[in-house]
Amino acid sequence: MTENPLVLFMPSGKRGRFPKGTPVIDAARELGVYVESVCGGRGICGRCQCEVQEGKFAKHGITSSNDHISVLGPKEIRYAEKRDLKAGRRLSCSAYVQGDLVIDIPQDLQVNAQVVRKADDGRIIERNPAVHLCYVEVEEPDMHKPLGDLDRIMAQLETEWGYTDLMIDQHLLPQVQKILRAGEWKVTAAIHQDMDSSRPSLIALYPGFHNEAYGIACDIGSTTIALHLVSLLSGSTIASSGTSNPQIRFGEDLMSRVSYVMMNPEGREGMTTAVRTAINNLIQNVCTEANVDTQNILDLVFVGNPIMHHLFLGIDPTELGGAPFALAVSGAVHSWASDQEIFVNKGARIYMLPCIAGHVGADAAAVTLCEGPHRQDKQMLVVDVGTNAEIVLGNRHRTVAASSPTGPAFEGAEISCGQRAAPGAIERVRIDPETLEPKVRVIGSTLWSDEPGFANSTSTIGVTGVCGSAIIEVVAEMFLSGIISEDGVIDGKLAEKSDRIVQEGRTFSYVLWRGQQEMLIRQTDVRAIQLAKAALYAGIKLLMDKQGITEVDTISFAGAFGTFIDPKYAMVLGLIPDCDLEHVKAVGNAAGYGAKMALLNKGYRREIEDTVTKIEKIETALEPDFQRHFVNAMAMPNKLEPFPKLAKQVKLPKRQLMADGAIDDGSPRRRGGRARR
Amino acid sequence: MTENPLVLFMPSGKRGRFPKGTPVIDAARELGVYVESVCGGRGICGRCQCEVQEGKFAKHGITSSNDHISVLGPKEIRYAEKRDLKAGRRLSCSAYVQGDLVIDIPQDLQVNAQVVRKADDGRIIERNPAVHLCYVEVEEPDMHKPLGDLDRIMAQLETEWGYTDLMIDQHLLPQVQKILRAGEWKVTAAIHQDMDSSRPSLIALYPGFHNEAYGIACDIGSTTIALHLVSLLSGSTIASSGTSNPQIRFGEDLMSRVSYVMMNPEGREGMTTAVRTAINNLIQNVCTEANVDTQNILDLVFVGNPIMHHLFLGIDPTELGGAPFALAVSGAVHSWASDQEIFVNKGARIYMLPCIAGHVGADAAAVTLCEGPHRQDKQMLVVDVGTNAEIVLGNRHRTVAASSPTGPAFEGAEISCGQRAAPGAIERVRIDPETLEPKVRVIGSTLWSDEPGFANSTSTIGVTGVCGSAIIEVVAEMFLSGIISEDGVIDGKLAEKSDRIVQEGRTFSYVLWRGQQEMLIRQTDVRAIQLAKAALYAGIKLLMDKQGITEVDTISFAGAFGTFIDPKYAMVLGLIPDCDLEHVKAVGNAAGYGAKMALLNKGYRREIEDTVTKIEKIETALEPDFQRHFVNAMAMPNKLEPFPKLAKQVKLPKRQLMADGAIDDGSPRRRGGRARR
Repeated sequence: MTENPLVLFMPSGKRGRFPKGTPVIDAARELGVYVESVCGGRGICGRCQCEVQEGKFAKHGITSSNDHISVLGPKEIRYAEKRDLKAGRRLSCSAYVQGDLVIDIPQDLQVNAQVVRKADDGRIIERNPAVHLCYVEVEEPDMHKPLGDLDRIMAQLETEWGYTDLMIDQHLLPQVQKILRAGEWKVTAAIHQDMDSSRPSLIALYPGFHNEAYGIACDIGSTTIALHLVSLLSGSTIASSGTSNPQIRFGEDLMSRVSYVMMNPEGREGMTTAVRTAINNLIQNVCTEANVDTQNILDLVFVGNPIMHHLFLGIDPTELGGAPFALAVSGAVHSWASDQEIFVNKGARIYMLPCIAGHVGADAAAVTLCEGPHRQDKQMLVVDVGTNAEIVLGNRHRTVAASSPTGPAFEGAEISCGQRAAPGAIERVRIDPETLEPKVRVIGSTLWSDEPGFANSTSTIGVTGVCGSAIIEVVAEMFLSGIISEDGVIDGKLAEKSDRIVQEGRTFSYVLWRGQQEMLIRQTDVRAIQLAKAALYAGIKLLMDKQGITEVDTISFAGAFGTFIDPKYAMVLGLIPDCDLEHVKAVGNAAGYGAKMALLNKGYRREIEDTVTKIEKIETALEPDFQRHFVNAMAMPNKLEPFPKLAKQVKLPKRQLMADGAIDDGSPRRRGGRARR
Repeated sequence: MTENPLVLFMPSGKRGRFPKGTPVIDAARELGVYVESVCGGRGICGRCQCEVQEGKFAKHGITSSNDHISVLGPKEIRYAEKRDLKAGRRLSCSAYVQGDLVIDIPQDLQVNAQVVRKADDGRIIERNPAVHLCYVEVEEPDMHKPLGDLDRIMAQLETEWGYTDLMIDQHLLPQVQKILRAGEWKVTAAIHQDMDSSRPSLIALYPGFHNEAYGIACDIGSTTIALHLVSLLSGSTIASSGTSNPQIRFGEDLMSRVSYVMMNPEGREGMTTAVRTAINNLIQNVCTEANVDTQNILDLVFVGNPIMHHLFLGIDPTELGGAPFALAVSGAVHSWASDQEIFVNKGARIYMLPCIAGHVGADAAAVTLCEGPHRQDKQMLVVDVGTNAEIVLGNRHRTVAASSPTGPAFEGAEISCGQRAAPGAIERVRIDPETLEPKVRVIGSTLWSDEPGFANSTSTIGVTGVCGSAIIEVVAEMFLSGIISEDGVIDGKLAEKSDRIVQEGRTFSYVLWRGQQEMLIRQTDVRAIQLAKAALYAGIKLLMDKQGITEVDTISFAGAFGTFIDPKYAMVLGLIPDCDLEHVKAVGNAAGYGAKMALLNKGYRREIEDTVTKIEKIETALEPDFQRHFVNAMAMPNKLEPFPKLAKQVKLPKRQLMADGAIDDGSPRRRGGRARR
């Protein structure tokens, strides 16, 4: 007896043997290869396109050729005539296995793309959305069998698509008869089933054949809201948009927003309305840009820190303003878009990722999902720096998480010459260790300040301040050039050598820029950065203690901060522990990408829900070692930790701390932590 | 080895053997005896009270005594001290089996009543509502275990009550923290689980221990809306109220309301708002009367004919206005009260019974559930008379249903001296067959018109018309006294014998009342009743044909009409087929009672859903035999059918129809059906 043909699907590599005559789509589904189909094998939606790879695949022992698949059938010929079926493409609903095959599910954005990781890695994410479109042709009403119109749709969805026991969104009841008649007894149903164990719901109905379904992935940051419009049928991102979080007018940082709620009875409602309105506007923007009807948006995933999460859901965040920082809800939230006043299709669902803890929100969960420390063999450190830094550390065996109160210094607040990133802001700095003369680069010009033409290139924008992420670089360069000691004190003796060092009262400052306005890096600026970085490092160190490790294998810097800083300088200052620099990467808006993953594959929802319950949450405020780590981390890079890997690439100044670790900065404020804010 | 003790529960008679030490509540639940418990065995809710019946129960071979149950425990003693525990009562959560027992679940309305059929029979209906209250004590928030407040409630509901995988109503998210803190980490959760196979939902939360939960059962009639407030914890009806359906201002009968919708673009919305407002007002009334907070209403069951059903749900009923009379939805509808703008607890659910067909609605389903032809061994005919008559006929093997277009004559419309039931309206009539003199009784007086004092007793109310149900009696008495022949013609020759017979144009009339105003029963009035009763009888006959039977065993007359007419006269006129009069009963508002059954026991929901799918629907308009039956049924009681059982109790006039069945009424309108309206 000869064996059944072997079918191998690419790019997933999933394979299995199937009897001759098996439709390719059935083989794919049996192997868990997700292939979209809206028309239920009628050969009209074209979503299930595949390609036969021809040739001999030695590794798999397969010879694949066009003889090994059925010839083009009538449905495929009709589809090719009416629409565009590229040469070599087949409809997997209408093509049948005849011999060994290597089948490629094409990465064609218009058809059935799987999701490919943006820039920094190429890993493939399979699609398995919570929403499916199902086209059915329904019996006309019959007085002898007086089943309701909706009931006959349901019967057909059961017969053709296997959906039993469907729940029905109530808003459809008044519409069903008009839709069915407009479609002449043909209708496309949108079915939502998030958890495979739960009852599926009929959430939308479109007259006739309908081949569009979209989702929204949105990261609600305290400063910025970023939103993506994604095709649920092809997986491609159609449009993206972002805006400032309008809650900023109620308070710049999270805690001032919580205070606002506590002081103003209507404060919570105002902030909830503000963020929802901003999201609705962004949805309008992306839909207009992509020419998509909002009625085709059926699923939405939101992430955000706990306070944004609560305010979006209309929950008073007051409890998050003080110990024990109790979340109203930590698990994943399933909701209706209409319940949250998000105006898309009335049946559209919202999914919010779980929060990890009172300070480690759904955004951190999304970053975790995206980077996947829990999927690694090695120890991965994931850091998302904002006013609080969220830190996740671990591997497939154990993952721990914490939030560390870094304060706003990394964002340029509390820094005398700090400003937001904008044209004219200094973004790069180098200091000559011999002369102590700086050179800078500003946003809006590609030239260094010592290059010819710099003055010209900045004549309109000017040189106006130091942007948040560059503060790291300034202080690190000051440290590397010996202007500040590892305990962070600006060395006043250097004033003799360079007029860049100037005395202001009891302390000294470094003159970074002399132009229309003078920019000084003051002792207090350095101290602010030290406090912030010590908090971050102490949090990381605490998690390393929990893991029982003294070094990490890889570091992912999430968020805008991570995108703009140079990892080398972050390590020179001791924000992060020693690590091969090539294993430190900026991963951009990992929270938004995690949201998109959860939108496109409900398997990721279960993965992150499961992971969050297993993550061990460390509350830094309750850990006796935090204060000790914090004090040691005030020094650059650190009082006690060695940085051998960094030292191979950067010449670090020699240690010269006093034996007891005391830091003499000449100011009354010495050693000690910060209150959480 | 001795056998385990035998425990018998009354009044259900369910029994089983259980090891000594089994809590009585566990024994009950294992046997499917529903015993309420809110506090989860803490001995504080008192809902699970039971009584030990003492003595020897020969039939069951049981000797039951107080020795056979554990002595009063500390929880019971505490409960008895704090609240009122009647002598002999036990808490079944805290009392343990020690020997053979006969346990009575008391029919105490304040505690745990089962539902007893109102007046006409005594059958017991067990309770198993879709909503349960569950009291839990929740852990306080802990920074080391940062589970959200809601998540800790869920964890406790799983541990104590076994609810896994609960869904959460979104409106609870903003409330959960305040409720939990107001209750000092104690909270009572309302869980809704309608289908046992579906995921349960957390629909309401109350701070601390909460021992109240109510439901609404409502019959939305085209003329009247009747509504009952029912305790879900005890089963008792707390208050009832009714009102005219305010849609009457849009059209007196159903079809004129459908026309109104077709003519007015905003018509549907206006009628939906009107009926919902009326229902909200009724809910306010019953809650005020019973001093119940609307926030304690958690489940609502609605029934109504298809047009009322659709208008309540906001569905345009236009399709029901013409063939093929397509329902938008025929299956049971599950919804949120808030979605239908019914203002009770925001998490409250609505259940609407399924519709049987385009003319046989959820009200007929409720009547079917109440009367239960599908539960009978014998053939039961259930008739609900309105503008259309809904007819259900069958037994446990097969049930058939139809709607017959009786028109409004039975409701007093189209009758020259007809009026609504009100003081002064004639409700009873007897005609002396010798003298042809009538005597009457009017609403508001207990005297017959030939009794002394009648004039006095009606001096203020007067004698103003004939109420709908009495029309049957007048015409039947006219037939029995020979004033009209069985073909319905008023015999003009009798004018010679009595001045009660008067000529008006080509036909004759009967003077029923001479007073301030003269009331005449005209030939057209008799004809209107004949047409209505022929339609009803023809529909019934069609169903009997389908069942292959020539007589029915029992007849239930549902609705107000059935309550007020005398079944004897209904049969004399031939509204219904021949039957022992003692097996013909009026069953009152069976639709409302069916709604109440579905409210109190979700098992009845499954029963009627299952029954409705099995009922064979007969569309009278499509049945060729309908017209023939209709023509035969124009005669009184019927041209062809014998009424031997009736004849034993009532002296029927001798047959004298012409051989060909033609009816000579002297008017141009002869034989023939009516257009459905």
